[in-house]
Amino acid sequence: MSFVPADAGYAQRVRDNFARQGAMRTLGASLEVVEPGHVVIVVRHKPELAQQHGFMHAGMLTTALDSACGYAAFSLMPAEASVLSVEFKVNLLAPAQGPWLRCEARVLKAGRTISVVEGRALQHDGGGPEKLVATMTATMFTVQGRPDVQG
Amino acid sequence: MSFVPADAGYAQRVRDNFARQGAMRTLGASLEVVEPGHVVIVVRHKPELAQQHGFMHAGMLTTALDSACGYAAFSLMPAEASVLSVEFKVNLLAPAQGPWLRCEARVLKAGRTISVVEGRALQHDGGGPEKLVATMTATMFTVQGRPDVQG
Amino acid sequence: MSFVPADAGYAQRVRDNFARQGAMRTLGASLEVVEPGHVVIVVRHKPELAQQHGFMHAGMLTTALDSACGYAAFSLMPAEASVLSVEFKVNLLAPAQGPWLRCEARVLKAGRTISVVEGRALQHDGGGPEKLVATMTATMFTVQGRPDVQG
Amino acid sequence: MSFVPADAGYAQRVRDNFARQGAMRTLGASLEVVEPGHVVIVVRHKPELAQQHGFMHAGMLTTALDSACGYAAFSLMPAEASVLSVEFKVNLLAPAQGPWLRCEARVLKAGRTISVVEGRALQHDGGGPEKLVATMTATMFTVQGRPDVQG
Repeated sequence: MSFVPADAGYAQRVRDNFARQGAMRTLGASLEVVEPGHVVIVVRHKPELAQQHGFMHAGMLTTALDSACGYAAFSLMPAEASVLSVEFKVNLLAPAQGPWLRCEARVLKAGRTISVVEGRALQHDGGGPEKLVATMTATMFTVQGRPDVQG
Repeated sequence: MSFVPADAGYAQRVRDNFARQGAMRTLGASLEVVEPGHVVIVVRHKPELAQQHGFMHAGMLTTALDSACGYAAFSLMPAEASVLSVEFKVNLLAPAQGPWLRCEARVLKAGRTISVVEGRALQHDGGGPEKLVATMTATMFTVQGRPDVQG
Repeated sequence: MSFVPADAGYAQRVRDNFARQGAMRTLGASLEVVEPGHVVIVVRHKPELAQQHGFMHAGMLTTALDSACGYAAFSLMPAEASVLSVEFKVNLLAPAQGPWLRCEARVLKAGRTISVVEGRALQHDGGGPEKLVATMTATMFTVQGRPDVQG
Repeated sequence: MSFVPADAGYAQRVRDNFARQGAMRTLGASLEVVEPGHVVIVVRHKPELAQQHGFMHAGMLTTALDSACGYAAFSLMPAEASVLSVEFKVNLLAPAQGPWLRCEARVLKAGRTISVVEGRALQHDGGGPEKLVATMTATMFTVQGRPDVQG
């Protein structure tokens, strides 16, 4: 699907917002792609993100997926709006071993108030094929007239 | 609902497992209650867990909820089993401001292979009433014959 | 939780709406309880609702649960509003054999735009204890200024 | 993704199973595609499936989506297995007006015990483009050694 952003400055708005998230720093996450309705966040696995078997904790992967889905929706919102997660559902298809987790989000529906976004977490090691390790379907809410800036 | 644990040493098994999670240390989470089919994890909010408005990131809250739900199911499993999250769904009812988030999990169904667990995240400030900020419904899988220990 | 309805005529509004649903007639469903934020719909199992093993099809049970959740939210909305399902998630805990399925819904959060509702399907046979066979968590949307009546 | 079925007779097994569902007759549903890991079910809207505004009830659409997802998983199972829905989540993107609803399901992961399947409901009127009205993500369970036949 192809989307036209409501605000031409959407990419900077996403990047500024991302930079304010302490949680993204804790993950060591980086924003790889910011396009209208399509965002990719990459995380490198490390012990601080691990569950009891050494894999990435499903909640830490969810943190990256939720941010990717939120920004995919946010990229299509007007400049004076902010985004809130209403709900998400995650299916875990395989243990997230890493070393790299690529979290892709694509908007399925961009409504005035409600957006639906699909996320996928793919694992790769720099060579070889990627492996799908998790899916997300998320509902995002557009908060009108409250620009998403601090201060 | 009241459950009889299959393994009398369930509480120690949960605590040992919790201690091995790097993600729980990153959250600064603590295990407050470990009973058969009922687990409570408490997290104190801090900037490292924050999203762009300073609230606790929904994914970080999910990390605590998923662990609480996983341990609630794990507490009822035989000694030689380990637990895997199949999927979870989270609804976000209010921003998680903290300072304390109490994540409670209760088993709804403890099957031989599949368990269903309900989680609630309640926010409190040491005084005043608690406020429900998120719910989880999770499906957990019993991995038979693979004790959940390292080494 | 206890709620005060925005519209004193909420119960009649729910009953009129229910009576217009062809799907409720197909199920043979009846409205048993209509209280502020709390609705119960009862369905009797029959072959027209069955899946391949003779149990009630999960989707047919979902039809009753979704309506119960929608009406629980609708009972708290202003008179000039209508309700839409944004999403729901259903966990199936046991086969729904019947003969009676009691679908209970309770509002967890009643927002101006978004409500979150929890549903439970309990099976009973007129005697003996009820058995939990399914859970739902649903997000409902308030459509303002569009009364839910036919023209 | 491309799958090799465990049982060469998978298509007949799906068709026989479908024919035993009273719920599919109530919907007037038909099986349009049965391929390994990929099933399409088509439903024509009618008043018996409607909610209060005349659109197809989300639960009735869920009935078709759940069956499509279940059969997509079932098509990859061994001959002596049967399928159970563990859980599903549905997002509703637009009212399902019909007249035709095409419910497509594709397996994302086919595990020995757990399969994950993605469903999409597309609305079309015989001409014009299709419109995405709902998504499902479902978890399906393989019941080993219990062939899915009656009698």
